[in-house]
Amino acid sequence: MLSPEILADPVELTRALVDVESVSGNEAALADQVEAALRGAPHLSVERHGNVVLASTALGRPQRVVLAGHLDTVPVAGNLPSRAEGDLIHGCGTSDMKSGAALALHLAATVAEPRYDVTYLFYDCEEVEAERNGLNVLARTHPDKLAADFAILLEPTYGLVEAGCQGTMRAVVTATGQRAHAARSWLGVNAIHAAGAIMTTLGAYQPRTVTIDGCTYREGLNAVRISGGVAGNVIPDECRVEINYRFAPDRTEAEAAAHVRGLFPDFEVEITDSAPAAMPGLDGAIAKEFLDVVGQPPQAKLGWTDVARFAAAGVPALNFGPGDPNLAHKPEEHVEISKIRAGAATLRRWLAA
Amino acid sequence: MLSPEILADPVELTRALVDVESVSGNEAALADQVEAALRGAPHLSVERHGNVVLASTALGRPQRVVLAGHLDTVPVAGNLPSRAEGDLIHGCGTSDMKSGAALALHLAATVAEPRYDVTYLFYDCEEVEAERNGLNVLARTHPDKLAADFAILLEPTYGLVEAGCQGTMRAVVTATGQRAHAARSWLGVNAIHAAGAIMTTLGAYQPRTVTIDGCTYREGLNAVRISGGVAGNVIPDECRVEINYRFAPDRTEAEAAAHVRGLFPDFEVEITDSAPAAMPGLDGAIAKEFLDVVGQPPQAKLGWTDVARFAAAGVPALNFGPGDPNLAHKPEEHVEISKIRAGAATLRRWLAA
Repeated sequence: MLSPEILADPVELTRALVDVESVSGNEAALADQVEAALRGAPHLSVERHGNVVLASTALGRPQRVVLAGHLDTVPVAGNLPSRAEGDLIHGCGTSDMKSGAALALHLAATVAEPRYDVTYLFYDCEEVEAERNGLNVLARTHPDKLAADFAILLEPTYGLVEAGCQGTMRAVVTATGQRAHAARSWLGVNAIHAAGAIMTTLGAYQPRTVTIDGCTYREGLNAVRISGGVAGNVIPDECRVEINYRFAPDRTEAEAAAHVRGLFPDFEVEITDSAPAAMPGLDGAIAKEFLDVVGQPPQAKLGWTDVARFAAAGVPALNFGPGDPNLAHKPEEHVEISKIRAGAATLRRWLAA
Repeated sequence: MLSPEILADPVELTRALVDVESVSGNEAALADQVEAALRGAPHLSVERHGNVVLASTALGRPQRVVLAGHLDTVPVAGNLPSRAEGDLIHGCGTSDMKSGAALALHLAATVAEPRYDVTYLFYDCEEVEAERNGLNVLARTHPDKLAADFAILLEPTYGLVEAGCQGTMRAVVTATGQRAHAARSWLGVNAIHAAGAIMTTLGAYQPRTVTIDGCTYREGLNAVRISGGVAGNVIPDECRVEINYRFAPDRTEAEAAAHVRGLFPDFEVEITDSAPAAMPGLDGAIAKEFLDVVGQPPQAKLGWTDVARFAAAGVPALNFGPGDPNLAHKPEEHVEISKIRAGAATLRRWLAA
């Protein structure tokens, strides 16, 4: 049970959330606690859909903002329960993103009269396949619940505004050949040797750097998997190279796909997975007000996040959270207490003004 | 039961052996039939070791030869029972190598007074890992059973003498890198991209052609498997390329390993498997007599065969069988009836002279 004292302290609240294990698929206990805490706040109306918990104010403000965070973590790596040491809290999910979820829950519980109407949104299964992602499911089943003029996703950004996100696309580039017995290799065509040209293209590729709204997006094109071969005595007739292309928000998915295909004219290219980029969306009034309070220049988000789901729903969204993105998913994951306090103060100054 | 009539006809005998399914590991029923047939010949003394069946004459001849063949086949591919069509017998094992085993069994049953003492040797598990190979097991447990002045392995050679064999070596060449999130790929080093240099070396490699005793051995160096990758969003830190080197009999295994290592000075090279080449061994008197009867120039055996086990035991050995080596292991495997009859006649002329 999250007491009023814990809800009033975002650092204690972070520890409390971290100490309820909630690896993707196992969020129910944590969602129960979050729901109970929100139901204790008379200014919020609360809904639960599976392990998605929503709490909204209805103050009749002209604008609505969303504060959103996921409740799940990657698998525990011997790093629970949490452990405090100086300015650090160590543990699974401290950075990604229970410290961020704690900020949203802390504000939900303690800011009774925000200057915008607010939807607080806690969801499950962000760390696994998109089909299970609670925000994705909600966007499909209750799209009206995402409706807002602006959204902040409390993913780890180390206290900076990380705006928009790059798109990500996976493609399989296939080199083909002809099987033969390895003792008579000249009767075949070696597909793995042929795939060398794919690697040469990848190695020589110069990724773009694109600046939008003052945010610089650095692209990347990389082989992430390779496989080929039939048996130890057979010239292989197929070699598959899986490629991941991270592209700046000035490209649509279709443009990104055409770009990848154009790089490998001599090979079969199959696009296997794709998620759009999100423009930074910093030109709106609420975004500018928020940037003023943060007082730091915005940066590009490197990596795909659920801000793209808000962008796809027509809601400008950015990432802002206390965790360090470079520590996400690592056994040594931790968060700085001072970043939690600073983040809470920033959000309060903006929301309660 | 193999009747005297069937044993007297190498074509009928081939069909009879083919129609007893004997995929590696399942040779017992066929070995039983072979053993019973051999025990029916009063001039032979017969032994059974597992599914290895041995039959020997003891006529006090000054020299002994071995006729050897394996009883197992690769997995059936909808090609049993056998089917005759014109000059062809279709079916699993027709070429590799029940037609060859049939010749040995036919001669064992019908040549009571060969000019050399003969050991007829039928063994199991040639088509699977070397540890299970019946000839290999026999060489370890009863090395004296292989003792001879000359050996013929009735592997498919399409009626030609294929002498010696190439060595075969497998090595894993590993490219390493540094993991990073694919959204921040510049923080990592992509091992799959790095492996492109391995493919470039393989693609540019000029294999040797080596002639010994009139037999020309054509080498080959090929990637046979490749693997690498951690996850769809991670820059991979390892890419493994498995290479198969087929080398001519003028190179020892140690020389072959040094050659492979020398090609990839910038990568880790691990030799994972190795089998020596066998010199053609055509300079002995019995080999020359046999070549005279065949009346065709010898060729190099392309591919590793168990002749190397005889060579390692100090017994000159060559391959000679009616099957077509290019049909081995294929669903459309078949053997020409005329090749079976010609092979039987050649062996009889040599052995019964």
